This record gives sequence, C-alpha cells and structure tokens, in this order.
Amino acid sequence: MTPSRQLHLGAFMRPVSLHTGAWRYPGAFPDANFNINYLKRFAQTLERACFDAFFMADHLAVLNMPVGALKRSHTVTSFEPLTLLSALSSVTERIGLIATASTTFEEPWHVARRFASLDHLSGGRAGWNLVTTSNPDAALNFGLDEHVAHAVRYERAREFFDVVTGLWDSWADDAFVRDVESGTFVDPERMHVLGFEGEHLSVRGPLNIARPIQGWPVVVQAGSSEPGRQIAAETADAVFAAPPSLAEGKRFYADVKARAERAGRNPEHLKILPGAFVVVGDTVDEAREKRALLDTFVHYDSGIASLSIALGHDVSTYDPDGPLPDIPESNASKSARQRVVDWARTEQLTIRQLAQRIGGYSGLEIIGTPTTIADQMEQWLTERGSDGFNVMFPYLPGGLDDFADKVVPELQRRGIFRRAYEGTTLRDHLGLPRPENRFFASSRS
Amino acid sequence: MTPSRQLHLGAFMRPVSLHTGAWRYPGAFPDANFNINYLKRFAQTLERACFDAFFMADHLAVLNMPVGALKRSHTVTSFEPLTLLSALSSVTERIGLIATASTTFEEPWHVARRFASLDHLSGGRAGWNLVTTSNPDAALNFGLDEHVAHAVRYERAREFFDVVTGLWDSWADDAFVRDVESGTFVDPERMHVLGFEGEHLSVRGPLNIARPIQGWPVVVQAGSSEPGRQIAAETADAVFAAPPSLAEGKRFYADVKARAERAGRNPEHLKILPGAFVVVGDTVDEAREKRALLDTFVHYDSGIASLSIALGHDVSTYDPDGPLPDIPESNASKSARQRVVDWARTEQLTIRQLAQRIGGYSGLEIIGTPTTIADQMEQWLTERGSDGFNVMFPYLPGGLDDFADKVVPELQRRGIFRRAYEGTTLRDHLGLPRPENRFFASSRS
Repeated sequence: MTPSRQLHLGAFMRPVSLHTGAWRYPGAFPDANFNINYLKRFAQTLERACFDAFFMADHLAVLNMPVGALKRSHTVTSFEPLTLLSALSSVTERIGLIATASTTFEEPWHVARRFASLDHLSGGRAGWNLVTTSNPDAALNFGLDEHVAHAVRYERAREFFDVVTGLWDSWADDAFVRDVESGTFVDPERMHVLGFEGEHLSVRGPLNIARPIQGWPVVVQAGSSEPGRQIAAETADAVFAAPPSLAEGKRFYADVKARAERAGRNPEHLKILPGAFVVVGDTVDEAREKRALLDTFVHYDSGIASLSIALGHDVSTYDPDGPLPDIPESNASKSARQRVVDWARTEQLTIRQLAQRIGGYSGLEIIGTPTTIADQMEQWLTERGSDGFNVMFPYLPGGLDDFADKVVPELQRRGIFRRAYEGTTLRDHLGLPRPENRFFASSRS
Repeated sequence: MTPSRQLHLGAFMRPVSLHTGAWRYPGAFPDANFNINYLKRFAQTLERACFDAFFMADHLAVLNMPVGALKRSHTVTSFEPLTLLSALSSVTERIGLIATASTTFEEPWHVARRFASLDHLSGGRAGWNLVTTSNPDAALNFGLDEHVAHAVRYERAREFFDVVTGLWDSWADDAFVRDVESGTFVDPERMHVLGFEGEHLSVRGPLNIARPIQGWPVVVQAGSSEPGRQIAAETADAVFAAPPSLAEGKRFYADVKARAERAGRNPEHLKILPGAFVVVGDTVDEAREKRALLDTFVHYDSGIASLSIALGHDVSTYDPDGPLPDIPESNASKSARQRVVDWARTEQLTIRQLAQRIGGYSGLEIIGTPTTIADQMEQWLTERGSDGFNVMFPYLPGGLDDFADKVVPELQRRGIFRRAYEGTTLRDHLGLPRPENRFFASSRS
C-alpha cells in the first residue's frame, strides 16, 4: 500500500505571535520578544509535535507605521533571527531552523557563511528565507536615500542566490582530509574559487567554512509577486505565499509547480506551504469566539489605519460602531478589497470590528475544531492546494499548545503527518534531495 | 584590607587552537572546526574555571597564504563567530561571549542588531571585537577590487562605533511599557531616531531591538597600530594587543591608559588584556618539550614562508637543518626581525626549527609550571603590564584543561583571580560600568 501524501508543517513565528493583539490575550507572554526561555519552550513543543521547521519572520525597520500603531505594536522589536535560531539549535535535536535574510541589504558572503554555520551547528537543520525586503524604510538604515527599485531587487536576488549557492559549493564534501601523519589538512584541489562577476555582485570566494551538512541549507521564499513566483520556481525549495482560499491555492500551486517543471526541476522538490492562521476550539463557535476576543485586543488606532489601506479609502471619519457604508472604487487591490467588504456584510461587522480584524491578521485562516481543521488541511493536501502549511498561532503559548496537543494527533491518526522524525536534516523532513556540488562530483553518491 | 588587584582572563579561541600545528598534537580534535560538541565542552570548562570570556577570533578570506601553507592549515575554515557564540549561549550561564565583526565589510545596523541580540540571548554576556580587517584578500569577497586604505578604514571604524552605540541607545531602558490594560506596548517618546549622517555612513535607525542588557555589549579591540591605539583609547572597553615582553607591555599599558585619560575616560574602565600563548608543564623543561613537540607538527612549507616574511628575506634556499646565516637588512619590522634572530642564536635553532616556531605561533608566550606561569601573570598585573590576559591554548583540549585545572587554582590561591562569578554580565566580570543611554536618563540609576 502506498503511503498517503504527507503533510509538511512549519511554524511561522514571532515571539509573541504575528497577530498584533496577541500580547494582550489572557495567558500571553508580553515580554517574549526578549526572553529566550519562552522561545526555547516553543521550539521544544514544536519538536515534540514533529514540526518540520521553526520559521522566524523578520523586519529591517521600525518606522513603517504611524506612531499610533507603533506604540501598540509588539512585532517590530525582537531577537535577530540567525542569533536566535543558533541559540535554539543547542536546545533542540531535529526540528528545522529557518531564518530570514535580505538579498538587498546583506552581503552574500556573510549570508552564505552564517547559514552554512547554522547548518553545521545544528546538524543540517538550517533554512534561509530569501527576501528582497519590500519595506522602503529599511533602505534608510543601510545608507540609501531611497528604496531599491523592485526590478533591480529581483535581479540582484537572482545573482545573490547564485553567489550564495556557489560559495556553499566552495569545498568538495571530501576536501577536508585531516591526515595527521602527512600533515595535509585540506586538499586544495578540492577547493573551488568562485570568481563571480555579475551586474550587481562581485565575489571571489572561496567561503571559509566547509560545505553545509545539507549541501545547501533549504531555501524558502514567499513567491507572491510575478517575479517572486518565477525566482521561487527556479530556485526555492519551499514557498509560503498564502492564497486566501483553496480555489486560489490550487491555481497558485499548479502555476508554481508548472513554472518549476519548465525550469527543468522536479516539481516534487519544490514544496508549497502557505502561511495559515489557525485557531483551535473545542467547538467551531468557541474557536470563532477566541478569534473575536483576540481581535478586541487590537487597538482601534492600529486597526483603522490598516482598514483604510485595505480599502484604499480613509474610513476613520465614519462612526466606528456603525456598519461599513458603500465605499468608492480605488487603487487598492480589488480582490483584497472585496474580501474585506464581504466580511463586513456576511458577518455584520462594525467598522471597529472590521478594523480590529484587519489590523490583527487578514490572510488565510483556518478556524475550527481539531477535526474540521484537519479536514481542511487534508483537503488542501489531497486536492493539491498545498504540500502543507506554515502555521501561524493566534497567541502564545495557548494557540501553539492547542495545535500541538489537539490538531497534530488528529493529523497523525489520519496517516498524513509523521509520528516521529525519520531523518535528521530539514531536507530529510521535507523530502528534498541533497544538492550535488556543482563543481565537484560527490563522493557520497 | 583592600583586596588585591584582580586578574581578568579571556580565552582567545579557534576551535582547534590558534597554533597551526595543533590539529596533529596527540589527543587533539582535528575536526573541531565543525563539531559543536567540542566547542560546548571547551566553553563549559572555561566557565567552570571562571574565565571572564570566550573570545572567538576570525578571518574573512581563505586565499591569503601560499597553497603549500593553505593545505596544512586548520585555521582558515570554521564556524562563523556570532552563530557559534549564540549556540554556546544556550549551554553556558555566566561566561562572556566575544565575537569578531569587521567595520570595513559589515553594515553597522546588522552589527548593532546581532550583538544586541546575543546580549539579550545570553543575559548580558556579549562582547564585540571591533576589527577593521587588514587582510587585503577579504575585500575581494565583498565586491571591491582593492583593499580599503588603512586611514579610510580607521575613519569609517570611528563612525561605525558611533553608529552602533547610537543604535544600541535607540530605546530607553524603560521604553517597553507593555501595559496590557491600555494597550500601550512601547512609549514612542522613549525611542530615539539616530539620523546619523557621516562621511562614510548614513543610518536612520531606530534599531529594532530593545537596548542591550549591558547597555552596550563590551567593545574589544586589538589596539596595535597608532590609529588602533587611539581609537581603542577613545572607545574600547578592553584591548588585547600583545607586546612581546613585560618591559614593552608596561610602556604599552601606560601609553594606552594615558590616551584614555586624555580622552576624558576613567582609565580603570579600559582593561589591557594581552593575548598570551600559555604552555603548562609539571616542570619548566616538560613545558618547553611540549612546545617543541607542538612545533614539529608545523609543516616546513608553512613555516618557511612565515619565517621569510618575518625576516624580510627568502630563506627557503638555505639548508633547513643548518643554522640561520647572517641575513641582510630589509623592510621587515626591525624589532620583530631581531627577536627571531635572537631566538635562533640563544636556543641554537636550525632554520627548520625556527620556521616551525614562527609558523606555529610567534607572539607573547608564557611557558612553565603552574607556579612560574602564575608568577609571571602576577608580575604583569602588579607592575601594570596588564590587567590580565587573553589566553591562547597551545592545543585542545589538553592545553585548556591544563590551564583550567592547574594554573587557575594557583591564581585563586594567590587571591588574584575569582573563585566564583560575582555578577552575571560580562561587564560585571570585567568591573566595567553599564553605559548611560546618551539620549535618555536611565530609570535604573
């Protein structure tokens, strides 16, 4: 009997949760941004639940929101991802560790080196979330007057990927001889000097670290925009863009897998793992109530700004406790705008409630009981809307514990999620092959 | 009774030791560059011995030596310092963690953020070894055709220090209010936007991490060259340049402390901790034999290149097993050259032995029994040649264990080294005050 397709689960983390009201939820740890002990607990719980990876989201600027929203926000300040995940590597054994790093504001030599180092520190568990950084305020922290243009960011990102992977291949897997008798530590014939000269980058190499345990750490991308989808199809091991419905998810899945195939890749080696906000209740109503309670902790100042942006229209002048009036057409994304309007109409939300929902979290959500959540996840998997999910927990630790203790056992019972890790590396967990060294035939294959 | 002046001890580490022959020494771990378990053991042993800090040296290029030396070298490839020390932060409680980062090839925003993050992860134990990177091969890994001029490197370093410390002060210590009731997470009035515009750097800020636990992580510098001494006197918390004798050490100590005083600082708040290569034996002869045995593991190819550089004259054409002939004057540093010639004469070394010594390690050394080593360290301390040392172990784990098990108890018996940590942060260990936030009066003072 062929085993069922298996679900892959990442945990898309910020120390207090990605939901902007989460720090006020009963039982939350408002100080988790700078308390490593909570993060250790979260990572260890996720590892007990056999998650593929702990995925740390990131930002490179503080001043990208109005001061009224900034003062309410727990999401702009916290540990830096690579140092955090290195610390977590010492208190975990198997779970993958994915950190965000920007191709626009970092040097490829440092990025290649640090992820290789995390891979060696963790026994092959490193992953790199390759981002081009869309936040224009970030540029001002790196000596630039204005943000790098979108197209230039993606050109540089493509070169950056080639440089980083080329640097990871600086040494053959068997380059380090360490022959004590003869005194030969490394075979220079098994070292490759990259000598990359591109439009945007010039890097000699070799890297001063052995080839990563995984060959290359796992490369993760959002893959949302048109150039984002294309670079992901060509280069990513996993994609986490989150279409807001299964129908749209299936279109996205088919599109990105087809692009990968056209790029000459095996589409099975590119995993589609959309970010999903999951709220667990003992009943569906209880789950909805938890979400509604959580949204009440989003301050109106934060929410109304987000709502106005989503609608492309300033709605701060209307009665917060009245219904959403008809809103004129605007430049805002039509589908996103319509989704907000639909919410307001079908759930009969006031402007305040709508603002709090949008200000809290407004992407793909799965809200229900362990059974209904498993149903939905299984449907996405079976109908090829995804190969799994990057789960966002509504609040911590409760939302994470609920998922680990209630949803994971249900997924395991259905035979679509592991009961124990079978391999040791993140590539093993995701079912991805170890890349060949492009400069040296592998002695391991 | 006034307690004696106290010795401070850092461990100046490379995973296999800084001595280039160490990987071949009996009992060594030749694979320690990529085996975190050894590093954890070393850090834990140093912590049991109450060392102030674990200090990870670093390089940013591989190709800075002839291929004949490169193939013998265990020192060019290993873990990246910040990821390594973050991993070690999880398996230690008190020891300081000092990582090297370059002001020439890094962005100040990233450096400020990562060291702040390590400081939060470790409970206030981070230190930054500020280097300008003198290795010209490094420039080629960062998109530059040629190396940045010495003077420009130091100008940029000075700005870089101002930016990094300014970013560390982005938030008042009490900025994070986290008032669940009102929904105020952070007080924007207690946030400072740096807005730095210098000759070399332009950085807006604020940093997206709370002020470090130590206020500022400890800043360490070599302080060797003339501009290096001056910037260290103005900005460093500790200096590790190693004059090769006590007489020279005293001159260096007096000079740097006087410069600090002229810069308006309390000279007690700048610790002079020269790097010292320490070999422990049960007798002085046994210690010398260990050193001699260790030198035999330096390959002649590596050693002869180093010796020729030190003498400013190619000596590879002479009989390796004959004595050093008279060498013509050259551009090499006269004092360094004379020191090599003196070694050859007084110890009657052949060219091979001399090459192996220079190729292995040629700086300040303290070789003897626990008693004679403690005598020398106490003399440096008492006569103000230093405030302690950054100890280099000749080989690992043996050389480290010998120091921890034999020399440290002797220093403790004399009352010049702690028997237990009294504080929790690296600043506590070094007797350094927590810097005031330059933009906000502290609520803690």
